[in-house]
Amino acid sequence: MTASTPLDPESVTPATVVAVRRALDGRWENVREEIRARDDFASLRVEPGTDDETHRDRVWAMLSQLAADGHALLGFPTSVGGHGDIGGSVVSFEMLAFADLSLQVKSGVQWGLFGGAIQALGNAEQHARYLPSVMDLSLPGCFGMTETGHGSDVQSVHTTATYDPRTDEFVVDTPMESARKDYIGNAARDGRMAVVFVQLWSAPAGHEPERHGVHAVLVPLRDADGTVLPGVEITDDGHKEGLNGVDNGRLAFRGVRVPRENLLDRYGTVAADGTYSSSIGSENRRFFTMLGALVRGRVSVSGSAVGAAMLALTIAIRYGEARRQFAAPGGDGEIVILDYLAHQRKLLPLLARTYALRFAQNELVEMLHEIQTTREAGGDVDERRQRELESRAAGIKALSTWNATETIQVCREACGGQGFLSENRLADLRADTDVFTTFEGDNTVLLQLVAKGLISGYADDFGNLDTLGTIRFVADQVLDTVAERTSLHALAERLRGAAAGGDDDAVLDASAQIKLLDDREEHTLDALVRRLRPARGKGVGADRAFQIFNNAQDHLLRSARSHLDGLVLDAFNRACESQQDPGARTLMRQVCDLYALSVIEADKGWFLEHGRISASRSKAVTAEVNRLCQALRPHARALIDAFGIPEPWIGAPIAVGDEQRRQDEAAAYAGAHRV
Amino acid sequence: MTASTPLDPESVTPATVVAVRRALDGRWENVREEIRARDDFASLRVEPGTDDETHRDRVWAMLSQLAADGHALLGFPTSVGGHGDIGGSVVSFEMLAFADLSLQVKSGVQWGLFGGAIQALGNAEQHARYLPSVMDLSLPGCFGMTETGHGSDVQSVHTTATYDPRTDEFVVDTPMESARKDYIGNAARDGRMAVVFVQLWSAPAGHEPERHGVHAVLVPLRDADGTVLPGVEITDDGHKEGLNGVDNGRLAFRGVRVPRENLLDRYGTVAADGTYSSSIGSENRRFFTMLGALVRGRVSVSGSAVGAAMLALTIAIRYGEARRQFAAPGGDGEIVILDYLAHQRKLLPLLARTYALRFAQNELVEMLHEIQTTREAGGDVDERRQRELESRAAGIKALSTWNATETIQVCREACGGQGFLSENRLADLRADTDVFTTFEGDNTVLLQLVAKGLISGYADDFGNLDTLGTIRFVADQVLDTVAERTSLHALAERLRGAAAGGDDDAVLDASAQIKLLDDREEHTLDALVRRLRPARGKGVGADRAFQIFNNAQDHLLRSARSHLDGLVLDAFNRACESQQDPGARTLMRQVCDLYALSVIEADKGWFLEHGRISASRSKAVTAEVNRLCQALRPHARALIDAFGIPEPWIGAPIAVGDEQRRQDEAAAYAGAHRV
Repeated sequence: MTASTPLDPESVTPATVVAVRRALDGRWENVREEIRARDDFASLRVEPGTDDETHRDRVWAMLSQLAADGHALLGFPTSVGGHGDIGGSVVSFEMLAFADLSLQVKSGVQWGLFGGAIQALGNAEQHARYLPSVMDLSLPGCFGMTETGHGSDVQSVHTTATYDPRTDEFVVDTPMESARKDYIGNAARDGRMAVVFVQLWSAPAGHEPERHGVHAVLVPLRDADGTVLPGVEITDDGHKEGLNGVDNGRLAFRGVRVPRENLLDRYGTVAADGTYSSSIGSENRRFFTMLGALVRGRVSVSGSAVGAAMLALTIAIRYGEARRQFAAPGGDGEIVILDYLAHQRKLLPLLARTYALRFAQNELVEMLHEIQTTREAGGDVDERRQRELESRAAGIKALSTWNATETIQVCREACGGQGFLSENRLADLRADTDVFTTFEGDNTVLLQLVAKGLISGYADDFGNLDTLGTIRFVADQVLDTVAERTSLHALAERLRGAAAGGDDDAVLDASAQIKLLDDREEHTLDALVRRLRPARGKGVGADRAFQIFNNAQDHLLRSARSHLDGLVLDAFNRACESQQDPGARTLMRQVCDLYALSVIEADKGWFLEHGRISASRSKAVTAEVNRLCQALRPHARALIDAFGIPEPWIGAPIAVGDEQRRQDEAAAYAGAHRV
Repeated sequence: MTASTPLDPESVTPATVVAVRRALDGRWENVREEIRARDDFASLRVEPGTDDETHRDRVWAMLSQLAADGHALLGFPTSVGGHGDIGGSVVSFEMLAFADLSLQVKSGVQWGLFGGAIQALGNAEQHARYLPSVMDLSLPGCFGMTETGHGSDVQSVHTTATYDPRTDEFVVDTPMESARKDYIGNAARDGRMAVVFVQLWSAPAGHEPERHGVHAVLVPLRDADGTVLPGVEITDDGHKEGLNGVDNGRLAFRGVRVPRENLLDRYGTVAADGTYSSSIGSENRRFFTMLGALVRGRVSVSGSAVGAAMLALTIAIRYGEARRQFAAPGGDGEIVILDYLAHQRKLLPLLARTYALRFAQNELVEMLHEIQTTREAGGDVDERRQRELESRAAGIKALSTWNATETIQVCREACGGQGFLSENRLADLRADTDVFTTFEGDNTVLLQLVAKGLISGYADDFGNLDTLGTIRFVADQVLDTVAERTSLHALAERLRGAAAGGDDDAVLDASAQIKLLDDREEHTLDALVRRLRPARGKGVGADRAFQIFNNAQDHLLRSARSHLDGLVLDAFNRACESQQDPGARTLMRQVCDLYALSVIEADKGWFLEHGRISASRSKAVTAEVNRLCQALRPHARALIDAFGIPEPWIGAPIAVGDEQRRQDEAAAYAGAHRV
């Protein structure tokens, strides 16, 4: 018996699809609906195989069109003419994934990263001065953070800005080749200005400059004619796997001088005499506060990845319902490939996971919106909640982008040779989104950030440290607290629960699924903490501390994933519970079961190893995943229709099923040989 | 204790690397060495981002150069001026994966598929008439098998060739749009002739034509000027995910007449009066015999996939040894990323699997060579052995191509933003090889073919049936035999063995690994057979038979994979045993352990569910995989050096480590801020 009521095939009506769609759309349904209603949207797509220069031209033209339409206003503050709808702007960005991903990323660079950095790190005067021309695209800009040598470890960037009190200017320098800003969107062709992340050096006149850590400085790159300014060196990153409509490049600075007021100084400023001051004393803490203010980028990438997976599934499932191959022996006609269990097994668990991630993403956007709206209104935000947002953004981004990579790949294979043709979109979707798993934070590094939050309980002190540092510090101070939290008492209780659950059907119940995932999360955190404990104490040398950390790295990653799986399942369960339409709720519950059981099945080795499920229960999980795939098969079309991707946006010829034509052709073929 | 002697770091010398390389090179080492010595090889690569038309031009020019060099002679019979070295030709083809994959695939279309079909299916006169101009490229050709509507199920192609006794001609027709030949390499631009797979219709004059099943007919497409001939319709498949130097297209025929002697008639011929005759009575059996004769294509794709994975690993591991990120807290300098356990875990098990697949591929090529050389010399080949070759080619092709897709993807992510830049090659490697998982047979369908062989024991009768048909037939006749083979006696023995193996270390022993995989293979086959048994008997309707097959499909695929894992491990073990150099043997044995334990770890849920390993043994497997990753880390460079990819072929800027420069830069950075 499953937790979900068996699904009456009749109960899935067009109204059901609408109810599911509204659940998926979430709070910013209106933003999605407005964009769906745009009749020019499908034209925002560049023909596959377009050469890079033309592709860049087209993307620029489309970006200008979006700017002219006021597309960028949504997320910017009302003080500069924006609409101040932070969540809406993230959702609006996500929708561009259905058009052209180069256009999306280019818009993200301009408005999300470049504009977003000025918004988050700049002062009111800087907002007033720059943001209007950022929004209307008269000032195209870059986000100069990553360097060739430092991506994940941004705190170690090597570019410098040194204050010269004689001229009231900063001097920006690239001291070595590996310190070039790299992969910078808008750099190779269109950008006029960059937010450049530098190590800031300054001192009152007469003193040796001191380093104040990472800050952001506005550096002009090109004049109004597009001519590169003196001291700036720009090279093109050239052809890429995807996103070739974005002009990525490398930036180097040779003693480039910018006025003192070009420092984005919300978190740290330099007086005319060279004196540095900041409201945040610790350099570490200041750095992480600045980085935290830029969290919107990660949330946006995550949303985009979910959208790309939805589009891929829409194409592959439609094709799977139209394509036939092999006749059943003795049977009439050929079998629709989505009727094969193996094909359902490929696509439907990924469909379920994409549902789950969309609900988790919706909650993430709401959290971002609440926190940033409060802060922009001058309200107080609890530090711990901010940390939790950052951790969740990191984790959901990692899961969503890996999900997109895997889902699009499986969809490509599920469409065979058709999937390889660019006209069917999967190839470009795959190539364009591939970098999502490593930009805006490498996913593996992001999972470590999540684990760090779990260990430290998002305590204030730990925002300041990188993961390795946290481990060290935590080992000294926090492990006992965590150990207490996951005490022997709790362990005993869990084991009692596991022993009592001898009924193999229990695992198919929603609360049992949640309990299994919670239990795994607690246990993996326990195990991690136990492994890190030997690193405590000042007597442990750096090499040994690294060794302890490194040997526990797989536990660290597992702990983060376990936590995130539970968090995503919670979001899906909440979405099911708040669904008012009974048919839609039943349908969503089955998809949710498929998600939860797929997660358990994928890690069944762990659950068995740790005595959390019996062998027969484990086999029951697999049988139930199969059963759910077959039960959901008739509703696969309804489930993708609920994504609400307008017909003209889909664009792939293979996604247009044409059963009548197939039948006509088959009839015509009966006597097809001729002389 | 592991089966492998602990590795003395000093024991891995340049001589060790050479010994490992010779093992990897295998029997056709000389062919590899000759190609490695070519100083023009690295120039056989097209700049990423080249537009499609230019790419096609360049590939054509390079193909002509290869033809002029006599590159194609290796695999063709001595009777037409070739060298008759079948294995050598497959290895030589594989090496082109290191140059340009479009060039490789185009050469494969011309010489492997087009030439290969004439060679395998044509008569001596056809060989003499066509093969010389195939080899020297004066007759560029196509392999017209796949149709838009039928790829995996080639037996159901809808193109027809009907004999007209009045003119002694066949009339070739495309009766419906879905019967167009699709994705056909060489079709869109260069091909002058195609081997077209058709349903053949003929009858003596005065009778209604009868269908004789699938045959191949030579159909001219273009004249010497490249003008498309009357009745032939060619459209371009347009831009693709990769392989854009190959001109894939669609072919349709409107009453195209070709002379009777254009039928490739080794397995079936039509007399002037229209009488059909064949040495093989059964249409099914004839079809599978013809298909079996074309097995070289599948073996070639598999080799190419292994080569692509080797190149990707070479790039990513070199980068992993040069790239540093994050300082250890309290430590000096930043950590080389391959020193992180998580990074080792990403790359080294894939390195081990790629080793394993290379050894399995080498054995496959030898088997192909023996069988086809014997047959070409007029010798007898045991039918069962031919079936085994086909099954193994199908299975190893599936594993190798999925391995390439996954390995290149992981390597891309392991190189971060650098991996996304086309100059570092991973992007194109990935895009160009992606279609390998679905062309020359969709991998999922190929695994079913493997399962079919396992069930039927490669019995002669089953070569004639598609998988579903086999299931049906097998259910009637063979299941008892299989059930006997895996009898209760054997089961009892296995369980005794499992119970006796209480020692957790035993799983780390090579013979224990083999036993675990063998045991899983037997058990999954048992389970499959049990599930199919209800389909026996004529009383079972077609719907019910399909349902039984479909419900067992995941068992079918698991059974095939289990068999293949064992087969690949055997090949690796044989390679270790025949290694004469002690250091090389020790090193290879550790890589082999890593492969075997990774396979067991990936399916630990199954082993635990079925009581084959205890929970503590299962944990020991994971611990040992970690330990092996760390133990092999110092030898990662030696292991990729043993792939023997010449320096200029690697081509990726990030693969050129430059430790001295890094140190110089770091020293220079010390006082880098300036005014």
